[in-house]
Amino acid sequence: MKPILVFQTDFTYKEGAVCAMYGVVKSVDRELEIIDGTHEIPKFDVWSASYRLYQSLRFWPEGTIFVSVVDPGVGTERRASIAKTIDGYYVVSPDNGSLTHVKNMIGIAQIREIDEEINRLKGKGTENVSIFHGRDLFGYCAAKLASGIITYEQVGPEYSVDEIIELTISEPTIEPDYAKGIFEINDPNFGNLWTNISTNEFLKAGFNYGDYIHVSVKHNGEEKFSDRVLFEKSFGYAPKGDVMIYNNELMKIAMAVSQGSLSEEYDLSYGADWIVEFNKAQSPPDSLRKAD
Amino acid sequence: MKPILVFQTDFTYKEGAVCAMYGVVKSVDRELEIIDGTHEIPKFDVWSASYRLYQSLRFWPEGTIFVSVVDPGVGTERRASIAKTIDGYYVVSPDNGSLTHVKNMIGIAQIREIDEEINRLKGKGTENVSIFHGRDLFGYCAAKLASGIITYEQVGPEYSVDEIIELTISEPTIEPDYAKGIFEINDPNFGNLWTNISTNEFLKAGFNYGDYIHVSVKHNGEEKFSDRVLFEKSFGYAPKGDVMIYNNELMKIAMAVSQGSLSEEYDLSYGADWIVEFNKAQSPPDSLRKAD
Amino acid sequence: MKPILVFQTDFTYKEGAVCAMYGVVKSVDRELEIIDGTHEIPKFDVWSASYRLYQSLRFWPEGTIFVSVVDPGVGTERRASIAKTIDGYYVVSPDNGSLTHVKNMIGIAQIREIDEEINRLKGKGTENVSIFHGRDLFGYCAAKLASGIITYEQVGPEYSVDEIIELTISEPTIEPDYAKGIFEINDPNFGNLWTNISTNEFLKAGFNYGDYIHVSVKHNGEEKFSDRVLFEKSFGYAPKGDVMIYNNELMKIAMAVSQGSLSEEYDLSYGADWIVEFNKAQSPPDSLRKAD
Repeated sequence: MKPILVFQTDFTYKEGAVCAMYGVVKSVDRELEIIDGTHEIPKFDVWSASYRLYQSLRFWPEGTIFVSVVDPGVGTERRASIAKTIDGYYVVSPDNGSLTHVKNMIGIAQIREIDEEINRLKGKGTENVSIFHGRDLFGYCAAKLASGIITYEQVGPEYSVDEIIELTISEPTIEPDYAKGIFEINDPNFGNLWTNISTNEFLKAGFNYGDYIHVSVKHNGEEKFSDRVLFEKSFGYAPKGDVMIYNNELMKIAMAVSQGSLSEEYDLSYGADWIVEFNKAQSPPDSLRKAD
Repeated sequence: MKPILVFQTDFTYKEGAVCAMYGVVKSVDRELEIIDGTHEIPKFDVWSASYRLYQSLRFWPEGTIFVSVVDPGVGTERRASIAKTIDGYYVVSPDNGSLTHVKNMIGIAQIREIDEEINRLKGKGTENVSIFHGRDLFGYCAAKLASGIITYEQVGPEYSVDEIIELTISEPTIEPDYAKGIFEINDPNFGNLWTNISTNEFLKAGFNYGDYIHVSVKHNGEEKFSDRVLFEKSFGYAPKGDVMIYNNELMKIAMAVSQGSLSEEYDLSYGADWIVEFNKAQSPPDSLRKAD
Repeated sequence: MKPILVFQTDFTYKEGAVCAMYGVVKSVDRELEIIDGTHEIPKFDVWSASYRLYQSLRFWPEGTIFVSVVDPGVGTERRASIAKTIDGYYVVSPDNGSLTHVKNMIGIAQIREIDEEINRLKGKGTENVSIFHGRDLFGYCAAKLASGIITYEQVGPEYSVDEIIELTISEPTIEPDYAKGIFEINDPNFGNLWTNISTNEFLKAGFNYGDYIHVSVKHNGEEKFSDRVLFEKSFGYAPKGDVMIYNNELMKIAMAVSQGSLSEEYDLSYGADWIVEFNKAQSPPDSLRKAD
């Protein structure tokens, strides 16, 4: 069977761009299967694009081709590429940082720059359009690859994996009864925030499900949250409205408001300037302290 | 042919959760066909989940498998189940009230609790994740069932249909020239509100298309709307901007603003505390009365 | 292979309407392939429906069947039709202006009114529903056509292409070093605005990539924007935050803020009352003038 094409972009479905892009794919080969990864990556947010690839890629069959188009530099000098991961997936994307997590957390075996002479859409009057590579280059070339019209080698010239543009991935600090990291991404729907701290490392550091743990969140040095909150396996262990710590879908430590929105209610967000500290050996919960 | 999988959740497409869930399905069996029911159920709104299943299920081929994941209690004691309707559909869902309308309006022949030992995703490092049953349990088990890898009996142990968790469905009162019910759901896009009053019963009670009918809407006893409005078959019979009563897509009495939004313009919503009364034999429309 | 069905509506995915509509299609023929064009056309916006068809249609395989349901007049006298384009596509739509661009920019060879006696859904209890032709008429009839159950001739009686309801398409004025047109549509996600001026005509008129061009935008006579801005092939040529002119995906002249939102930041929109003038031979950029 031909590989599945999974698309993620920041286009949204508000107008006809996704539709035109998918039409190109189906015009290359009617048999190709197209899946919406998401078209709601925040505009121009290459970091989120990179993270979302890492979040879902492993759950797809080997050989699946991901097409990721968050491309503020479209039509300029940035490379348009197809990477092959060490475990056999393909990622079609501008080489603009979108490959950061896949390279670091999974591993890229090879990368090739798409040859626009050969692998760009022709005959639809868009040869002089510079702003829609999702349709004219990435989607079209990915379809040719998925269909078997071209081999991976025929995508274009290989270049060194070392040259791939990478954003900075921050490493957490984990010590007995203490962990420090960042909120590295959010769940924009439920308002949860996900740290870069591995749950397995967190458990090894002495934190246990059922513990009340002191959490401090600082943004550019300013304290935005400080309290002791419950660490549990799932939201339902905390009363509705309570802040809690939990093990998220990628086995990372995350924070939420049970049946609420942490990011909205406490005005918190993510990025390298959002520092989170977890401390086990600290004073009792504020709620208890107040009752002293 | 293998049954179609129709998914509805409150996840939205804002991040990678749906993508990961669908990847699991395709990893079970590449041939399975996945359809988006909706991923925009309001967060934690089990009532809407229940209603949306009822709204669309009958229009699908017999044997279709619906996967509904609105699951505020994920990872706690609520059952994860697969129900079989009396007309041959399957609904994969937490047993948390999401099955209310299917049980009451269609009928459930059998229900089984998913055996997590056998029918939970393994080998992807998510064995200790408790918060994403859409991916790790519901999606995975539904895919196995659709693929024929397991029979319905192999889902897990059967339990009594009487044990299914049900939300309260309110019954309307219908008398000659009078009807009283609730707004039981909305159309969140167009801002229409749908009552629990059957249009056929309404017509039998003496209301006719073309009539001006007095409508009163009360929320917790407080009057929120009171006027005589047109009852017609479709929106276009009323001038743009007018409130009207119409027969909705499920043959229920509903209210709308013609080419506007009733819920926004009049600040109305739905639920057991939203009482709607229709009265035929009442004073003339306010507009006429003012002209007296 | 059976033709693909591409759907566009103003329903959104917020509730179960799309799901019910697609269920009807799959109940006609399990093999039919359904693609989301978009379900986020602005409510009741027939102009956008018309434009989005034009934007994406040509990129699909010949024979593709588009189903467009933006239908404020549903259940009234407007015709429900299937048009066949001169290049072999089908458009299933209310004949309410939605066919304007396809007729004018592509060409309609034939149009037929759907015979409701034969080609309306039966047996699901919706025979007396007047407000959901997407499910009961357009989707159902399109599925029968795609499946080969009916021929195009069996859709219903043909009528003259001249009778098709058309909205007004405005023509630009292009002279040496001068162009005047309207913003005829937006990109609602990125906040770009697209004129009705062909890029090829614009280039022939003497404007060149790299030029700073004076742009004036007037809304109902009132000046809303006036400045000299860069004309380039893509966004990345302008500094982040700068207004610019570019060649859009349909080879039309468009305006954007580089990595920003022109429509939001300058409160601009589209329609016949939004006049845009481009003038080459004019005073230097405001920024330079201020530095005099």
